[in-house]
Amino acid sequence: MEFLLTVQSTPTAFADRHIGARRQADVDTMLKAIGYDSVDGLVDVAIPDSIRQDTALKLQDALTEVQVLAELRKLASKNKTAVQMIGQGYYDTVTPPVIRRNILEAPAWYTAYTPYQPEISQGRLEALLNFQTMVQDLTGLPVANASLLDEATAVAEAVLLMRRANKNKTAKDGKTVLDSDLLPQTIAIVKGRAEALGFEVEIADLSAGLPDGDINGIVLQQPGVSGRVFDHSVVIADAKERGALVTVAADLLALTLITPPGEQGADIAVGTAQRFGVPLFFGGPHAAYMAVREGMERTLPGRIVGVSKDNAGVPAYRLALQTREQHIRREKATSNICTAQALLAIVASMYAVYHGPEGLKAIAETVHGHARTLAAALKKAGRELTSESFFDTLTVRVPGKADKVIGAAEARGINLRFIDADTVGVSIDETTTPEVLSAVAVAFGAGPVGDAAGFELPADVVRSSDFLQHPVFNTHRSETQLLRYIRRLSDRDLALDRTMIPLGSCTMKLNATAEMEAISWPEFASIHPFAPDHQTAGWRELIEDLEADLTEITGYDQVSIQPNAGSQGELAGLLAIRGYHLSRGDQQRTVCLIPASAHGTNAASAVLAGMKVVVVATAADGTIDHADLTAKIEANKDVLSCIMITYPSTHGVYDADVREVCDAIHAAGGQVYVDGANLNALVGLAQPGKFGGDVSHLNLHKTFCIPHGGGGPGVGPVAAKAHLAPFMPGDANKAAHEEGHGVAISASRYGSAGVLPISWAYVKLMGGQGLTDATKSALLAANYVASRLDEHFPVLYTGEGGLVAHECILDLRELTTRTGVTAEDVAKRLIDFGFHAPTLAFPVAGTLMVEPTESEDLAEIDRFIEAMITIRAEIEQVASGDFTLEKSPLRNAPHTAAAVVYSGWDRDYTREQAAFPVHHLKQDKYFPPVGRIDGAAGDRNLVCSCPPLEDFEN
Amino acid sequence: MEFLLTVQSTPTAFADRHIGARRQADVDTMLKAIGYDSVDGLVDVAIPDSIRQDTALKLQDALTEVQVLAELRKLASKNKTAVQMIGQGYYDTVTPPVIRRNILEAPAWYTAYTPYQPEISQGRLEALLNFQTMVQDLTGLPVANASLLDEATAVAEAVLLMRRANKNKTAKDGKTVLDSDLLPQTIAIVKGRAEALGFEVEIADLSAGLPDGDINGIVLQQPGVSGRVFDHSVVIADAKERGALVTVAADLLALTLITPPGEQGADIAVGTAQRFGVPLFFGGPHAAYMAVREGMERTLPGRIVGVSKDNAGVPAYRLALQTREQHIRREKATSNICTAQALLAIVASMYAVYHGPEGLKAIAETVHGHARTLAAALKKAGRELTSESFFDTLTVRVPGKADKVIGAAEARGINLRFIDADTVGVSIDETTTPEVLSAVAVAFGAGPVGDAAGFELPADVVRSSDFLQHPVFNTHRSETQLLRYIRRLSDRDLALDRTMIPLGSCTMKLNATAEMEAISWPEFASIHPFAPDHQTAGWRELIEDLEADLTEITGYDQVSIQPNAGSQGELAGLLAIRGYHLSRGDQQRTVCLIPASAHGTNAASAVLAGMKVVVVATAADGTIDHADLTAKIEANKDVLSCIMITYPSTHGVYDADVREVCDAIHAAGGQVYVDGANLNALVGLAQPGKFGGDVSHLNLHKTFCIPHGGGGPGVGPVAAKAHLAPFMPGDANKAAHEEGHGVAISASRYGSAGVLPISWAYVKLMGGQGLTDATKSALLAANYVASRLDEHFPVLYTGEGGLVAHECILDLRELTTRTGVTAEDVAKRLIDFGFHAPTLAFPVAGTLMVEPTESEDLAEIDRFIEAMITIRAEIEQVASGDFTLEKSPLRNAPHTAAAVVYSGWDRDYTREQAAFPVHHLKQDKYFPPVGRIDGAAGDRNLVCSCPPLEDFEN
Repeated sequence: MEFLLTVQSTPTAFADRHIGARRQADVDTMLKAIGYDSVDGLVDVAIPDSIRQDTALKLQDALTEVQVLAELRKLASKNKTAVQMIGQGYYDTVTPPVIRRNILEAPAWYTAYTPYQPEISQGRLEALLNFQTMVQDLTGLPVANASLLDEATAVAEAVLLMRRANKNKTAKDGKTVLDSDLLPQTIAIVKGRAEALGFEVEIADLSAGLPDGDINGIVLQQPGVSGRVFDHSVVIADAKERGALVTVAADLLALTLITPPGEQGADIAVGTAQRFGVPLFFGGPHAAYMAVREGMERTLPGRIVGVSKDNAGVPAYRLALQTREQHIRREKATSNICTAQALLAIVASMYAVYHGPEGLKAIAETVHGHARTLAAALKKAGRELTSESFFDTLTVRVPGKADKVIGAAEARGINLRFIDADTVGVSIDETTTPEVLSAVAVAFGAGPVGDAAGFELPADVVRSSDFLQHPVFNTHRSETQLLRYIRRLSDRDLALDRTMIPLGSCTMKLNATAEMEAISWPEFASIHPFAPDHQTAGWRELIEDLEADLTEITGYDQVSIQPNAGSQGELAGLLAIRGYHLSRGDQQRTVCLIPASAHGTNAASAVLAGMKVVVVATAADGTIDHADLTAKIEANKDVLSCIMITYPSTHGVYDADVREVCDAIHAAGGQVYVDGANLNALVGLAQPGKFGGDVSHLNLHKTFCIPHGGGGPGVGPVAAKAHLAPFMPGDANKAAHEEGHGVAISASRYGSAGVLPISWAYVKLMGGQGLTDATKSALLAANYVASRLDEHFPVLYTGEGGLVAHECILDLRELTTRTGVTAEDVAKRLIDFGFHAPTLAFPVAGTLMVEPTESEDLAEIDRFIEAMITIRAEIEQVASGDFTLEKSPLRNAPHTAAAVVYSGWDRDYTREQAAFPVHHLKQDKYFPPVGRIDGAAGDRNLVCSCPPLEDFEN
Repeated sequence: MEFLLTVQSTPTAFADRHIGARRQADVDTMLKAIGYDSVDGLVDVAIPDSIRQDTALKLQDALTEVQVLAELRKLASKNKTAVQMIGQGYYDTVTPPVIRRNILEAPAWYTAYTPYQPEISQGRLEALLNFQTMVQDLTGLPVANASLLDEATAVAEAVLLMRRANKNKTAKDGKTVLDSDLLPQTIAIVKGRAEALGFEVEIADLSAGLPDGDINGIVLQQPGVSGRVFDHSVVIADAKERGALVTVAADLLALTLITPPGEQGADIAVGTAQRFGVPLFFGGPHAAYMAVREGMERTLPGRIVGVSKDNAGVPAYRLALQTREQHIRREKATSNICTAQALLAIVASMYAVYHGPEGLKAIAETVHGHARTLAAALKKAGRELTSESFFDTLTVRVPGKADKVIGAAEARGINLRFIDADTVGVSIDETTTPEVLSAVAVAFGAGPVGDAAGFELPADVVRSSDFLQHPVFNTHRSETQLLRYIRRLSDRDLALDRTMIPLGSCTMKLNATAEMEAISWPEFASIHPFAPDHQTAGWRELIEDLEADLTEITGYDQVSIQPNAGSQGELAGLLAIRGYHLSRGDQQRTVCLIPASAHGTNAASAVLAGMKVVVVATAADGTIDHADLTAKIEANKDVLSCIMITYPSTHGVYDADVREVCDAIHAAGGQVYVDGANLNALVGLAQPGKFGGDVSHLNLHKTFCIPHGGGGPGVGPVAAKAHLAPFMPGDANKAAHEEGHGVAISASRYGSAGVLPISWAYVKLMGGQGLTDATKSALLAANYVASRLDEHFPVLYTGEGGLVAHECILDLRELTTRTGVTAEDVAKRLIDFGFHAPTLAFPVAGTLMVEPTESEDLAEIDRFIEAMITIRAEIEQVASGDFTLEKSPLRNAPHTAAAVVYSGWDRDYTREQAAFPVHHLKQDKYFPPVGRIDGAAGDRNLVCSCPPLEDFEN
């Protein structure tokens, strides 16, 4: 075997496994189709000289998989596991092994994409619907979303939702009041958001009643961070009386025993599902949740799974209300949340499916009983609790002795919460044993605990209503049956383990097993985000190392991995720009220029950063319209904050003038934000931090191999030049404004730390040359697809030499005009070939955007091209009248097994053409579980919880 | 939720997850159908009082999954990982993570059953065919089997095959000559087998030529255990000249560089595929291989995958030549091998698929180069090698200093091989690094190694032929594509993750994830079987603990887990009986009584133990015919060695007279062997060691949750009373007859140690009460199935109260006579419902034997009953003439997607009836990849290697 690319192949070179097209013959075939002699020749033409980096990446030499796993074991051994009783929003939990192995560690689940193509996503949509149903039942509110990023940002979203939704004349512009017993990180995050948007936040002890003044909304926590449980009904009634809306941040496990917020009149409930089987992960990723009362569902942020029907009338799931999403509403969006935490929400939902209502209640009762048992021992020894009413957390007064108590506990392998020098917190969870309780008691100077105390909560907060009565939560009780349920759901979906997912802008590349394995090792997964630093040296070394590597790759001066989604990275970057202008006294610089082709999240993030969006037009060739840009700069020069550009552009081409654009912005006093969504086309070849960017976010779940998890987790690090470094995200668990830091962007200091070993491993496995080879291969593959398909579906935009970057847009508009066949028809027909569709209608309606990535080999790319050409021929059959559009295999795609087996078949094409449009599908055919889904019907009649089983009967 | 069974449910009680029917309502439903009020009432009637144990099992209280994993981590931490350079048949290797996660750790692969139903086993059959092709190509012989148990027993099988196959008049009764450079454990195993069968074995240095005398066959090793590589062609030619057959035990990795045995005239090649990605596992399980020249394929032991066609003419795989199998040939069988090492063979085959010929050769060249580099450093320092010609292993003379050198290496974290006080062995493998080479050199008192040496082998042994040219070994080179290939193959198969597998006698119960997880932890998986004892304390503690628990469960006095399959356990038990009689001077006691209904392996094992089989008839009610038994005992009383009975019997009933049978045998001076295949019906309720057994083997892969792995690994511990203890398996790596031990039965002391954590965890998770509950539940489920189905398919045999034990035989013979529909038709039609068929035609032709096990819940059992009743109605449709047998959905089952989509459909039933005989199949339908396979055609035209791709074209 010979290789054309730079790194010499060896049996152990990981780059050879990550990059699909490594063989000389394959590379030659692809080059020949494009009309080039060498990959470097192609790259040299495609990428403007003006931005090419002139030195190779200075990264450690590539390691083998064995070496990387050994290094990860070394790092892991530098973390110290402990019994985690710090609480403060994070609890240890038991991930049932069957769920860990078959979801968290299963490619069928973790390599899946966001379920925008619902017909091939019914499995994860059902799991997410279970999540919503679980949240609805437990909170007592009728509509929940399919997860948010973390509890603190979920509260921030709830606060913003209250500000939008409150129409009461006096109250709507009032302040937001946060109960003082909220998680401190929640308070920090809300304050940071409020500051950018300019509304007032007050912190008050709401158990003592509401403060004076106009109040837009209040946020309570049940139980409070202190552990206190009190009856919210009075303060909620008062709030309503005064026209304020009410959010309650509630613990889902506690809600199995405590009256849910919805039954007490709350408008919104938020919180985290972490303790439902999701590992601590050093702070994330975890699934936060939000549920709202009737009437607020259409402004609920995040994704919502809804129930609709397919073209045969079978119930089918889909993402509902997509028109609310930020990529469509742009600057009118009500939130910039894009990625959810699908994989973690699915784990949490399966935890509920496995335990069922009785199991969850039994766990809660055990936890509560343990807390009471410990409380009794502490009180017997004369220790004082701040609250006699609690669920799982005790706050204990130990005047002057907090350090001593915490030290004594740590000596026994237990972490407690340091509140202040006089106060210590203890949180019980499902892993707590009686032995641990006694050890804690001894650390407090008390005797071992006595007999187990039973359940006892104040009568006014005890829950009386049922929950989780749907059969799905009462059926899969044996491990055997849960395993089969998990398998059945995953079989309904298409993920990377079965097909390429050629999604423009989403970079669905290999998520290698060696990258994935470490995340479930206890030394990484079981660390509390607020564990003392001397227990987390391995984690911090890994994170600092990754940040340093990303700094080298991007050409910036500093990177923070805190933002736990691309959208959060954008917000962090824009807030850094805001902080910079403010620090220079430029309060007026609030205008953000955004090209018309930008992803809608850009605009939504700018709004959340308190900016005003001004759109810059697109030229006919897809680049920025320079005349319009010049005019917009001129018009806004005194108030210009920044421009947000994506590079290469969302049109899939390298704009040769990007340096000039950056220079013009800088000349006008603005900053340049380079959206890193397309960094996969740059790594090793060009650095945004060197060609004009001041700040970028990256998507580790695109370029750096964190799997999409069916719609999250994501990680969106922010990278910036030195002058913006003082405004990078601070720690929400520290002062709101730490010296030398900006506002916090995520609840925990390192965001979705738990998945960072994936990107760390990827960079180490590839090395600088391997990463550069990957970029070149991505360009080669995209240009090969463009060359092969252009005659069938014109490539909309090209750059220098007629080349594209790492993706290409196939234009179907002329075909649609001529035949009626739409891009959506093609997307759905690809399912019949076993493919996930390319990106549909972004950035241009009526088109498909294809990104093959470097990980697909020639055979798989050719299989895709074959499918597209076969579909093109079917479109011609419509044009020629061989069949009508309505009875064509295109409009009726995708075809279920039931459809092609149906005895009453009456189409103008054969069953074989429907099911096996190419011969090699016969043996390993994927049939979608449902046919084409009627989206509009689902939105009109919004159903967001598990439908009764009878709906599935014939 | 309330529970009827003994252990109280808690959220963490594992028994609640292992046992399917735990809910009061479900248990009541099942009891009602059977006509009992309580499970205990049912059990009391079903099991004869005479054998019931009167005390509960004395085992540790049940642990939770969290506790078991914590205990396993503790045990793991007592093992010490090291750089393993001991060699002697076991090499460290890199399991590609994508293979580890997606095969070794994937339920779709590890929970699959032996591929006796080929239509639902095409995926693993293809993987096994790849294994065969790999072995054939590398050894240069045309037919390989689909794996054997370990290298040493594979050589023993080869020796027996030579003794059967050699028809040369003078040579055939000659001695077997083993080269002195064979693995010592191989020599020990062959000697043990020869002793029982009474043929002569001589050890000689065959590089010096053949010894005098008649020679049946010779066995060479390439490279020898000393590492020596020499040209075998001369000695092979000499052997052939003298009428001897030739076996070469060869290293597969070495064969990428060295002339293969087949090209030098060898008749048989054997060895292990362990170093192709299968972890060391402290000695096993690993896949051994055997390949033979043309003409010997029909007596080749073990399973062979062959290529045939389905009913549409599509190439399809199946187990070939099943009529050779021991369950059919009984005492005429040529081997007792039953279980193979399918899962490990699949891993090894995928390793070859991933690396391809160039990759394997590159690995071999690196290994060889490293060996030469080390040799140069050692020689430079004056150390002497026993052979200048080697592949990967050096034997170094260090007069009087072996302990010192080995100690110095161990201090550097490296294990070398102690050969004798003056000699040390060093084996290089693919994980060896230059740093390790230098550390080894230093341990020998040499300097660090110099520059890397290149490839250099004696010209007369260098391989010139190509290998692995089939596309399957040259296609799946990227991790993405290998992942998809693995997924595609597993999707073709039905395993426990999709359906119950109601196989009588095979006990396909839950293989819980918590039981499985530890086996791939490095502290268990990476330990060499000959590592010093102080590095393996955790392993030995786990094994001793498991043996003690099994002793308590079975009521015997001692257990050895060494036998790595049920067949080996049988052989070990029979050899113990043989040893006992011999020790008492009873050489004449060689007759083994076996009931007619016994599994054929019983008889085959008896023959291998040097016994003469006498069959005892079956009475009309399925029990042993007592009159015949009495007569046979009387006729053989002076020569009676033992009886082998299965309990409960293979007919699925508890014979009330078992104690009397045992007493009668004992009275005649015989021993009682109780086959433990059906122990799942006894645990906690009756103990074979207490009701009359002298020795038993168990199947950890049946009763104790080791997954079947698609046809192995298995573990078949032997359990015996104290008087047989001195004859339990010895250690093949020690003296052939250790004091107080019998002959060795497996190559390594602890057999398939690597999978023992599974059974250990199962016992700990269940505790005595949980295990007993499981047995009761298994009885409940089997009797429920029998009650519900009896009116549709008569239950052939029942015991007390009309009850069955843990399985029941459904008799189709009358239906077959009346309608022509066979049990096979029903088995194949069940596939259309998504089920794996019950056991077909064992122990009675024309029947199906159903064992639901305790792990299936009522919903799944009812789904099976619904399918069987639906099929029964279809049989009536044949009877009534609604459709002809030939055009019935029964005879045409199973139906592929291609079949039901076919435009030319011409059956008498609808496509819907074919594909969706019950409505709920529509959404999650499993279509088999091929239709009914023509077995006879495949046997007539035997093809046992990967067919060319063109065969799959239309």
